[in-house]
Amino acid sequence: MIKSFFPPSRTLMGPGPSDVSPRVLAAMARNTIGHLDPAFVSMMDEVKEMLQTIFKTSNALTMPISAPGSAGMECCFVNLIEPGDTVIVCQNGVFGTRMAENVTRLGGKLVLVKDDWGSPVSVDKVEQALKDNPDTKLLAFVHAETSTGARSDAKTLCALATSAHVLSIVDAVTSLGGIEVDVDGWGIDAIYSGTQKCLSCTPGISPVSFSDRAVEKIKNRTVPVSSWFLDTNLVMGYWGAGAKRAYHHTAPVNALYALHESLVMVLEEGLDNAWARHELNHEALAAGVEAMGLAFVVEKNSRLPQLNSITIPEGVDEAKVRGLLLENYSLEIGAGLGALAGKVWRVGLMGESSSRRNVLYFLSSLENTFSELNVDVAYGVAVKSALAIYES
Amino acid sequence: MIKSFFPPSRTLMGPGPSDVSPRVLAAMARNTIGHLDPAFVSMMDEVKEMLQTIFKTSNALTMPISAPGSAGMECCFVNLIEPGDTVIVCQNGVFGTRMAENVTRLGGKLVLVKDDWGSPVSVDKVEQALKDNPDTKLLAFVHAETSTGARSDAKTLCALATSAHVLSIVDAVTSLGGIEVDVDGWGIDAIYSGTQKCLSCTPGISPVSFSDRAVEKIKNRTVPVSSWFLDTNLVMGYWGAGAKRAYHHTAPVNALYALHESLVMVLEEGLDNAWARHELNHEALAAGVEAMGLAFVVEKNSRLPQLNSITIPEGVDEAKVRGLLLENYSLEIGAGLGALAGKVWRVGLMGESSSRRNVLYFLSSLENTFSELNVDVAYGVAVKSALAIYES
Repeated sequence: MIKSFFPPSRTLMGPGPSDVSPRVLAAMARNTIGHLDPAFVSMMDEVKEMLQTIFKTSNALTMPISAPGSAGMECCFVNLIEPGDTVIVCQNGVFGTRMAENVTRLGGKLVLVKDDWGSPVSVDKVEQALKDNPDTKLLAFVHAETSTGARSDAKTLCALATSAHVLSIVDAVTSLGGIEVDVDGWGIDAIYSGTQKCLSCTPGISPVSFSDRAVEKIKNRTVPVSSWFLDTNLVMGYWGAGAKRAYHHTAPVNALYALHESLVMVLEEGLDNAWARHELNHEALAAGVEAMGLAFVVEKNSRLPQLNSITIPEGVDEAKVRGLLLENYSLEIGAGLGALAGKVWRVGLMGESSSRRNVLYFLSSLENTFSELNVDVAYGVAVKSALAIYES
Repeated sequence: MIKSFFPPSRTLMGPGPSDVSPRVLAAMARNTIGHLDPAFVSMMDEVKEMLQTIFKTSNALTMPISAPGSAGMECCFVNLIEPGDTVIVCQNGVFGTRMAENVTRLGGKLVLVKDDWGSPVSVDKVEQALKDNPDTKLLAFVHAETSTGARSDAKTLCALATSAHVLSIVDAVTSLGGIEVDVDGWGIDAIYSGTQKCLSCTPGISPVSFSDRAVEKIKNRTVPVSSWFLDTNLVMGYWGAGAKRAYHHTAPVNALYALHESLVMVLEEGLDNAWARHELNHEALAAGVEAMGLAFVVEKNSRLPQLNSITIPEGVDEAKVRGLLLENYSLEIGAGLGALAGKVWRVGLMGESSSRRNVLYFLSSLENTFSELNVDVAYGVAVKSALAIYES
């Protein structure tokens, strides 16, 4: 007979999920009510309104998709691509690669703009690709590449798309809540995020937003959207304005309680404060890591404060280090993915996980683990260097 | 400034979600851990094993999809249909209609077998359709039609499919845990369910299972699955056997804690006991409802114990009755959908909601509401008739 499951208590400093506040967990455990209950529908309106604030948009088509970020990605592509459409996808990590997969599966004509893993998307290459492919319908790129820790210049890339009369699709899974995202200001046409990164909610939901230009393209489709579940025309019958909510699917009621609470918390802190906190904790972490003699994969100007890819020192068994951190310190950090597998650790400072306590705990735990394994780094300086940042 | 949300306390007797046990809610609120954490991976194995037991299958490809039942439906269709495939869909309510939508959106050749809303799928018509369409690849039908309360003969329909060398897709969203479902015994090739019905978990996850024949068809596809998120070949890299779990998407960690706990509870009670409980509470409800003079939409032999469609008496404002039940008794029942909109109430007795307390509370609340509205039914007999069933 299988028994109830009690998870160990962890400090989550991987690429997500991040630490979840007890307030959010408590919200999630409130009693389930119906997805058409008037009380629930009012809460849905609040979730939409808070998402608009956090995305910095007045887009009416702003809502949480009832599935994880990769379904949010698929929602953007499946609604906006018609077979034969030329789509430029910028690939500088795992998630650009996944975007490209979406395009080919949906019958789009794929144009790949490749950059090294760890580099931001090259603005010049995108400009050239737009010139070379005048029939382009969509430009898609990842704002914050979770697999490498590189931040791309979303504002400039979207401006290029706009002046070429091309719609933009932006992956903001890891950026939203951690660094600036400005949907209306930058002219983003379709954007998706996730709940388990800088919003510090439990995983499983994907906030999305579509501009009026994007909605226009969807309405003028000649081929129906291949996905019934993700068809925005149908989903909006339930999430849309007005008293009459049409049943589409049963919303994940308790997951939305959690999202609601996490959005309330983000807005209580204020977006500017949240971004400054992510920046400060990243600087402290970087000071500590670099004092030990470790290097970052991404060059300084393009580093994401919330996702720190650290090069593994020569001769160190990277899986063993992660294993010891988990076993001795109940501390999770991430492994490298794809081209960076075995070469980097990914240390997340996202949402609730972006705290002074976590930075100091990680540095001392890593230093002690290195000491246990006789790794040749500088000892006794990491925590002090981080503290110096906090005190400056 | 938007404040934290506190839902009202409800008794959920609609078509789902059903009442959720405090044990399941408590599980959901346990601290989030990583989706690749060894402790989480062990829990995933237990979820798979319990789903195999409850589906009565040894299918290796048995897992929970990280999205609601309509995504589970789409998962079955998107993996099994290739453009041009002939698919017979049985339509006797909303969910058969949704199946047909999936087929046409995915480029399948649709053959519709229609039955009246409230009737089960006609075995004779399906037999004829299989004869008339010898190139049929798939037969799809709803076992327990949530929009009407009709139960179809899944065992016989699957046997027809098997002898015609056709794969079957079965919607078990409302049946699983409430009435017998026997995937291996009946030869079901693809099946999907939902968490928020007779499993009495929070909404948002869809358990699915595929037979080896179905897996064979998926592996031999010539056209890739259009959905990246629902491609079983990719999802199984994460949910499959073996120590090495490939990252596919971030699992909805806390929702899976909840599913785990609800499956533990179903197995503690035992499937046979759960089915008997659903049957008994249905009989008591039916006795009370019929004693008042109300009629069921579905004829006795095809009634689902967990979903009771009751014909609205002449001249009664059905929305007003539901509104008063919600307002005065905090009791949710469902409205009619589609062809039955405005004609029926749907009273769910699913999972935790299938209890003597709920049956008696519903009957007395409905009777008092009728009395307030001067509806011409028999008074003072409903609860007594239900009690007589419990005492017999």
